[in-house]
Amino acid sequence: MRTIDWVDGAIELIDQTKLPGQLEVRRIGTVEELVDAIRTLAVRGAPALGVAGGYGVALAAKQHGGDADALAAAVHRVTTARPTAVNLARGAQRAAAQLPGGFDAVLAEADALRDEEIAASAAMATRGADLLTELCGEQPKVLTHCNTGALAAVVGGTALGVVAELHRRRTLGPVIASETRPLLQGARLTAWELDQLGVDFRVAVDGAGPFLMARGQVDVVVLGADRICGNGDTINKVGTYAHALGARRAGIPFVVVAPESTVDVDTPAGTDVEIEDRDGAEVITGVPAVNPAFDMTPYDLVTAIVTDRRVIRLDRGERV
Amino acid sequence: MRTIDWVDGAIELIDQTKLPGQLEVRRIGTVEELVDAIRTLAVRGAPALGVAGGYGVALAAKQHGGDADALAAAVHRVTTARPTAVNLARGAQRAAAQLPGGFDAVLAEADALRDEEIAASAAMATRGADLLTELCGEQPKVLTHCNTGALAAVVGGTALGVVAELHRRRTLGPVIASETRPLLQGARLTAWELDQLGVDFRVAVDGAGPFLMARGQVDVVVLGADRICGNGDTINKVGTYAHALGARRAGIPFVVVAPESTVDVDTPAGTDVEIEDRDGAEVITGVPAVNPAFDMTPYDLVTAIVTDRRVIRLDRGERV
Repeated sequence: MRTIDWVDGAIELIDQTKLPGQLEVRRIGTVEELVDAIRTLAVRGAPALGVAGGYGVALAAKQHGGDADALAAAVHRVTTARPTAVNLARGAQRAAAQLPGGFDAVLAEADALRDEEIAASAAMATRGADLLTELCGEQPKVLTHCNTGALAAVVGGTALGVVAELHRRRTLGPVIASETRPLLQGARLTAWELDQLGVDFRVAVDGAGPFLMARGQVDVVVLGADRICGNGDTINKVGTYAHALGARRAGIPFVVVAPESTVDVDTPAGTDVEIEDRDGAEVITGVPAVNPAFDMTPYDLVTAIVTDRRVIRLDRGERV
Repeated sequence: MRTIDWVDGAIELIDQTKLPGQLEVRRIGTVEELVDAIRTLAVRGAPALGVAGGYGVALAAKQHGGDADALAAAVHRVTTARPTAVNLARGAQRAAAQLPGGFDAVLAEADALRDEEIAASAAMATRGADLLTELCGEQPKVLTHCNTGALAAVVGGTALGVVAELHRRRTLGPVIASETRPLLQGARLTAWELDQLGVDFRVAVDGAGPFLMARGQVDVVVLGADRICGNGDTINKVGTYAHALGARRAGIPFVVVAPESTVDVDTPAGTDVEIEDRDGAEVITGVPAVNPAFDMTPYDLVTAIVTDRRVIRLDRGERV
């Protein structure tokens, strides 16, 4: 099953806000519906957002093919629906480059993007599983954050794809999924995926991660990225940076798994990235809240970045 | 209003599980009811637990005054109702030392303990506010974790008492209260107390703390302790250690405020303390979870410890 796909003239995506209670496929026929799905996180995860960007431009071409201004405005709305993950804008721009060829050319490009993400997931799983075994031996105790499984990436996943590959190889130790407040992507989505895979796992509150590392319950932290900057600074779900600090202090590896489509060498450093501040009501209602959706992990805290094409050992001085 | 007190032959305490929805005073006439209230966190916070320990022995003396075995068993149940905060056992033991003098002697000792905690709150507020101004100047942006206000400490509080004192002096900047999963003592209790005080504050998820520090939104972290070990290692609500790592990396002070009754020089280091692992159902139901209620912050990450009697500048090599 694919998290997001183009089916009979429209986007179909798994509504991630309904999980784990309901596995519901939502059919999306307009740019407006797609922008809403992206903003409300019905579709989320950097690779899936890239595909959403591509198909979003296909929807725009279908809706506004004859009206250049309306088309440009619709493409802009897709591109900017969320600011932090580079994949969304990049996927939309790639598909938009085919607009002169008409709807069919745009759709073909979006399909290609989808197929590349599917292939990238498989490549990352192999490389990442090999690296974790090299770094930690067999049966590593793994902590992951947010959701980086098939739901985030069409099929397979990024960091959770690596976990799934270790499980297939029967070389995975117990997994801790941090719940990932405020929207609980870990407790809702990762727990659901790990349960489906049959992995031995437990959920923990986000604040417990560094202590569980200090207590010896974690051998390696593996998670995804929404954007990897030119210097290796990594933008990912809020809470990632705290886990990186915990891993460093515990002396365990901190591994980022993300496709090349997430690597953004045009952005030199993490401080150049706009961090999306979302509505405080996601945290608590009736009380003011500050709600950065992402945070920035400086490259010196990252042991290695695994992409579909390479392993970048930042700990050995390799660079993006 | 006192969080916990002895009124007309029984304990009366604010049921902290009902806040912020309801301000409900619960009357507790037996050791069994008290142990239940402690275990379910109807009463919590190290200083308040110390007073609960003292009055718990008074209840035991009242219920079982004529039966030495039953009395000893009841005192033991109070003493061990929760394992991590030193205050509970210490308060119970102090009151129990007066058992030969009968119920009146025990109650007098428990009353004295309560009065000492009230005086300690006032002393900590002054010392702590002076220290924060010395470290950060006026209007510091403060992050605090869990609840350390009047609710945790009869009246006044520990770290939140310091925040309140800065507010009274009109030298407090904006406050961030981390929500403190799984039981949301920050979002429920600290937010309620800050709102009552009229402080400008926002709630944040626990995972955001270190990033908010990196982004310059926090000048100082101030929080409490459930036990301070002989070497300065600090046991406090889970999530504290991650905040300490964030403060260190951001180069901002990390200040612990706790009464002398929380200092436990008989326990040399944090690794010697039993960390209470609570029911995973507090984190999530229907899915396995690991739920350490506390964590340990190594002393080298602590800038200073403020007690009712002294300021211990660990950053300057001073020792507990």
